[in-house]
Amino acid sequence: MDERKVTVTRRGAERIARGHLWIYRTDVEKAPAGAEAGDVVALVDGRGRFLGKAFWSARSKIALRLVTRDEVPVDEAFLAARLSDAIALRRRVFGEERFVRLVHGEADLFPGLVADRYGDVGVVQTLVPATDRRKGLIAELLAGALDLRTVVERNDVRVRELEGLEQVKGVVRGPAPGPLEYREGEVRMRLDVLAGQKTGAFLDQRENHLRAGEYATGRCLDCFSYAGGFALHLARRAERVTAVEMQPVAAGLLRENAALNRAENLEVVEENAFDYLRDRSEEEPAFDLVVLDPPAFAKNKESLPAARRGYKEVNLRALQVLVPGGILVTASCSYHLSPEMLEELVLDAANDAGRRVQVLERRGAGRDHPELAGVPETRYLKALFLRVL
Amino acid sequence: MDERKVTVTRRGAERIARGHLWIYRTDVEKAPAGAEAGDVVALVDGRGRFLGKAFWSARSKIALRLVTRDEVPVDEAFLAARLSDAIALRRRVFGEERFVRLVHGEADLFPGLVADRYGDVGVVQTLVPATDRRKGLIAELLAGALDLRTVVERNDVRVRELEGLEQVKGVVRGPAPGPLEYREGEVRMRLDVLAGQKTGAFLDQRENHLRAGEYATGRCLDCFSYAGGFALHLARRAERVTAVEMQPVAAGLLRENAALNRAENLEVVEENAFDYLRDRSEEEPAFDLVVLDPPAFAKNKESLPAARRGYKEVNLRALQVLVPGGILVTASCSYHLSPEMLEELVLDAANDAGRRVQVLERRGAGRDHPELAGVPETRYLKALFLRVL
Repeated sequence: MDERKVTVTRRGAERIARGHLWIYRTDVEKAPAGAEAGDVVALVDGRGRFLGKAFWSARSKIALRLVTRDEVPVDEAFLAARLSDAIALRRRVFGEERFVRLVHGEADLFPGLVADRYGDVGVVQTLVPATDRRKGLIAELLAGALDLRTVVERNDVRVRELEGLEQVKGVVRGPAPGPLEYREGEVRMRLDVLAGQKTGAFLDQRENHLRAGEYATGRCLDCFSYAGGFALHLARRAERVTAVEMQPVAAGLLRENAALNRAENLEVVEENAFDYLRDRSEEEPAFDLVVLDPPAFAKNKESLPAARRGYKEVNLRALQVLVPGGILVTASCSYHLSPEMLEELVLDAANDAGRRVQVLERRGAGRDHPELAGVPETRYLKALFLRVL
Repeated sequence: MDERKVTVTRRGAERIARGHLWIYRTDVEKAPAGAEAGDVVALVDGRGRFLGKAFWSARSKIALRLVTRDEVPVDEAFLAARLSDAIALRRRVFGEERFVRLVHGEADLFPGLVADRYGDVGVVQTLVPATDRRKGLIAELLAGALDLRTVVERNDVRVRELEGLEQVKGVVRGPAPGPLEYREGEVRMRLDVLAGQKTGAFLDQRENHLRAGEYATGRCLDCFSYAGGFALHLARRAERVTAVEMQPVAAGLLRENAALNRAENLEVVEENAFDYLRDRSEEEPAFDLVVLDPPAFAKNKESLPAARRGYKEVNLRALQVLVPGGILVTASCSYHLSPEMLEELVLDAANDAGRRVQVLERRGAGRDHPELAGVPETRYLKALFLRVL
């Protein structure tokens, strides 16, 4: 192969040796003359030793994303094998499940590609020039491997701006998908992969939705409910579920989904979850289970202190509204809030509330959202399942 | 109540305020005159403020174990309520499951008491003078709550020596239990709660045994197999399972259990797992799944460096014998080896082996072995479910 060569600094080479896939621009010693964003390049260290092949980005701070450590061509057959390997993981874990994340970027050794499956519709995000340039091929390979009717792109995500890629959504191949029905176990949810606010459902919480449902009993509360991923599962076993969602559009979707599932025990409250929890915490504890699945409060390092205060407040209130023996499911999808920080602030909240907390399970994103050892950025979702005494 | 008062240092009081249950002897400011090991005492700080009630130990470095922060009598009704609360957790999580840990010591706010249920037989360990002195009452309460035929004690555990308690095993109430059959899902295992090497089965790994079974396919390997908790579950789905167990007594038990489950695809190899893995690692990778569930290599802080080398070696070998896409279930029950250390050494091993590792699940002990937030000592078992590329 005669890809262009990129020489990386010793620090860059060490990063790769320790298992990471990213090389920052500051660790590029010699930029590849004439290389275009999206090219596959060969990485070499200062002595010219081959380190692997990588996707080249012209604009992002992350200049290079390693694709392989092997001296093999990164061609159509290579990418097809990567996709089929990612699909193999989902088959092993979920069998013939038709609603799954198919490719989870770096964690599936396919940097800059996210792909989800909703039945016979594929949804891709091509987040770096290398995958963006190849999106037609990727859509074709996915459609072929899984017999997909349509593949759409939801490339209306901010992170693409760092790469100089435009905000776009639409069909990549096949007919317009139209509204879909998405299933999580026995729960049905409406989904429009093109018109919806985000890519689709919160597939990363799918296994946690199902698990939370197993604990449901009596009176349950789901805060930051969005389309009802947790609330609908709780409603299958609980006597009564209150789902708190402030956004009118999401609350409308939630009501539709409740009707679709004939969840007559599910009440939707259109209110800020902080306010709702504060008011309930002034009453006698009444809930047997509370779910906290807030949006990422810490979008970056700078917002972490404020985010911690926010997380602590909702957790403190949730502890206060739970009856003794009640279950708290508390999640955070902020990468910057580490699992240890989440546990610490829950303990702080418990001490403030004069309550004891038993840790039953520490969970993460579903198994179709794996993490890659050595790439801490692939770990973001934490969900603690706690019992409150 | 007129329990004796114990004044604790400021450091001790802070420890309690942060959620821990233990006070070391070095943080006892005034020892309770005339108190006997096993008494319930009232904790106060330097200004005489009530902090809670605790079990007093006369000999252990851990002088006091907090039982409650409330000013209530710690009497039979109190202990009965604690037991029934612990039983309530198991019911919520496992329904009518009859093979469970009922009380997990500190994590169930019952310091120094471990109780397991094997059908209609209870097994208790009373690890501090306060629970030891009350073992008749505890057995009576458990038998009454769960209609147990017999309660035995497996108090032949080293940790009792720190408290000046003798090594003893035998029946506490009811007839001799005789040999039992223990079940994990569909798997059956023989068990003798009095004659066996340890309390009983490895209940803490029960949920992980079941989970590992779900991943089984093709050729599987179970190292440090003991009575076959993992191997028997693997055998239900795999083509062929090799269980490596060095101890002849355990290997015999494993063969008996294999026969009981008609697991004809399960081969028992009586060999040191290190040797077995080293030999296999010199051949072509052949296993679709490997389980590493070694005994605690790190019994204390001093043995940690050697333990890390041991853990790293078995993990490196396991990675080498797995086919691409294979599953590694790697556990450690050493408290001193933190979850982060385990992940680090697995990553080191992966880098040495030139393999990539996806983290699918981070699991701990089963939910009948909860942890208490603020008491890190209640967290010990780690089990990573990994996919190896």
